[in-house]
Amino acid sequence: MARRETPAAGPGSRALVVDVIRSATTISRVELAELTGLTQPSISNIVRDLIADGVIHETGSADSVRGKPRKLLAIQPAHRFGIGFQLGPESVTCVAIDLTGGVVGREVVPLDRTDLPARLAARFDDFTAGLDLPRDRIEGLAIVAPEAPEWAEERAGLAGQLRIPVLFENDAAAAALGEFWSRRVSREQSFGCVYLSTGIGAGLVFGGSLFRGASFDAGELGHVSIAYDGRSCPCGNAGCVERYASMTATVDAARAEPALAARLRLDGTVSSAYDTIARAAVSGDAAAYAVIDRAAGHLAVAVTSMVNLLDLGRLVLTGPGVAVAGSIYARRLRTHLARTAHARHRHEIVVELSARPRDAASIGGAALVVQASIAPGHTLGVS
Amino acid sequence: MARRETPAAGPGSRALVVDVIRSATTISRVELAELTGLTQPSISNIVRDLIADGVIHETGSADSVRGKPRKLLAIQPAHRFGIGFQLGPESVTCVAIDLTGGVVGREVVPLDRTDLPARLAARFDDFTAGLDLPRDRIEGLAIVAPEAPEWAEERAGLAGQLRIPVLFENDAAAAALGEFWSRRVSREQSFGCVYLSTGIGAGLVFGGSLFRGASFDAGELGHVSIAYDGRSCPCGNAGCVERYASMTATVDAARAEPALAARLRLDGTVSSAYDTIARAAVSGDAAAYAVIDRAAGHLAVAVTSMVNLLDLGRLVLTGPGVAVAGSIYARRLRTHLARTAHARHRHEIVVELSARPRDAASIGGAALVVQASIAPGHTLGVS
Repeated sequence: MARRETPAAGPGSRALVVDVIRSATTISRVELAELTGLTQPSISNIVRDLIADGVIHETGSADSVRGKPRKLLAIQPAHRFGIGFQLGPESVTCVAIDLTGGVVGREVVPLDRTDLPARLAARFDDFTAGLDLPRDRIEGLAIVAPEAPEWAEERAGLAGQLRIPVLFENDAAAAALGEFWSRRVSREQSFGCVYLSTGIGAGLVFGGSLFRGASFDAGELGHVSIAYDGRSCPCGNAGCVERYASMTATVDAARAEPALAARLRLDGTVSSAYDTIARAAVSGDAAAYAVIDRAAGHLAVAVTSMVNLLDLGRLVLTGPGVAVAGSIYARRLRTHLARTAHARHRHEIVVELSARPRDAASIGGAALVVQASIAPGHTLGVS
Repeated sequence: MARRETPAAGPGSRALVVDVIRSATTISRVELAELTGLTQPSISNIVRDLIADGVIHETGSADSVRGKPRKLLAIQPAHRFGIGFQLGPESVTCVAIDLTGGVVGREVVPLDRTDLPARLAARFDDFTAGLDLPRDRIEGLAIVAPEAPEWAEERAGLAGQLRIPVLFENDAAAAALGEFWSRRVSREQSFGCVYLSTGIGAGLVFGGSLFRGASFDAGELGHVSIAYDGRSCPCGNAGCVERYASMTATVDAARAEPALAARLRLDGTVSSAYDTIARAAVSGDAAAYAVIDRAAGHLAVAVTSMVNLLDLGRLVLTGPGVAVAGSIYARRLRTHLARTAHARHRHEIVVELSARPRDAASIGGAALVVQASIAPGHTLGVS
């Protein structure tokens, strides 16, 4: 039962106003006050500043029931851009988004990890030049990868070299933000994003904010144990679902079946071998289907535990692991949740597939950059 | 990284002010403004109202560095009371607390479930009369039990009969609130409470608020699966940790060992048999110790999954299951987390034992009542 406080007119209110305008596409000041709970004078001040800063603009009028027509407000899309680079196991996915969340550019290039900061800086120059984005309208770069800590120094170096803010974000958290941003999920609803890649992560959005935990390490769904005496994991734990259901585990399982491995020629990288298995699975190869479905069944056990702990009402599956065979995972998760989730008699647990599973993390990273620039000092969607 | 909004002067601010005064014992208006982030005029208004309502009072002066001495504010403890009844498997634990959270009365009586609402109403009359609490200062009654839904009608009947508000709360959630209230945990810190009873639950406090989930069903730690092909659970799931580590499961495990069962005479109720095993375990009975320690090891697997999902920095073990042999559980959890928790290299994961494991849930229920009465329309610690 979310009893929302009337928000005060701080930086968070500015971000909230922009978020509500973006969701509505066009909206009047009166409706803004209703939807945000802010007072009319606060809305007037925030809107005036946002127009002056070029973030929003007036875009015509709506009929009013009485008195003068209401001016409608909308986001000024081409005003500012955010860049997200998602470092996958073998490639970098680069996206640029505008203030509405619209993707204005996308590119996937191979990833060479030698001298990475310099390569990323060059990549940034190429990518933004190719899109003809003026440098002074680029609000920053988000680097999105599975693990953060080792990146602290590179980030500082990169920011200095590019002379723009450089953020770091975990892939599952960024993907959750990307899905939250693109789906217009209600801020009242808690929302879980399952990110399937060579590892497994979750992004948890509670009350419109990404849940971080004590040290920015929340969402380690991959290290939920589904077998107390199960496979040992490099993390130190046993039975981690990552050892049963990640893309890596699935490729290992398929390679352990000689007939399947020979038929599908699974000798490339994990990503390419995984995509081969996934394509075979959705094309009617029974053995490939069984391998993916078994992984999905294991994933479903951990996801159900997460749902039971947090009483989630909505899940989105995203990440490269669901790009081809996402429907197999979604079906298995729905079946398992319908049979075993603790709250299943109280409410539906919606399982959705990402519309852009390979890009959600980079889009979320770029969204983070744009949000940080709209309301400095308060990053919407992050607490 | 919690970037806190400046709160506006709504009902939540009133609750926040009371909470900060309670934590500080005595505090000046200036310090209140600093700690809450509210403006001086807001603090003055709220404090004036709270004094008029008799919730707080001025209690002397502190020296000020310049100008006139600062008046100190404190909670008026005897002003209002909350009652919590926790329905255990075989008994009702009744507590009364004042506005400071101090327990002013406690009583445990056998639970007869026939015609329960009438019995609880009679119990309420007896208990409050025995404590000589004036009825007009009792803010309400919280009924605390493992499951909520079946209680809707009884609650309405009871409220009508007693002519006071009657709340219902889940035992694990109430216990978390009770522990949060009595421990003065920072609002910034996320906090998990593990409630061990005939079932297993968790209460999750994020940013000072109890996390509820989509249908008030969050915290079902007992239905986190620790074995995907494990014991089947009446909930429909397999491998639920409740089937391995609840008091009930532990009694079953001990009864399955004929020598142990005969030696300890485990033929009473689950609660009494469990207490017998727990006492034997802490008194050096190796077989009893092994049974409890095995249960603790299973509990540790599920708790580690919860810690990995939420990156918790602080856990409290509470409930009747840790009243006697809590140290065995705490030791096993600490060892397991130190070896396997994903964030273990980033921060310590503190595992504490409740000071009042059998009473935390009833105290938390009573706290909920008091909090609801201080700030109607906004229950502090609940969102």
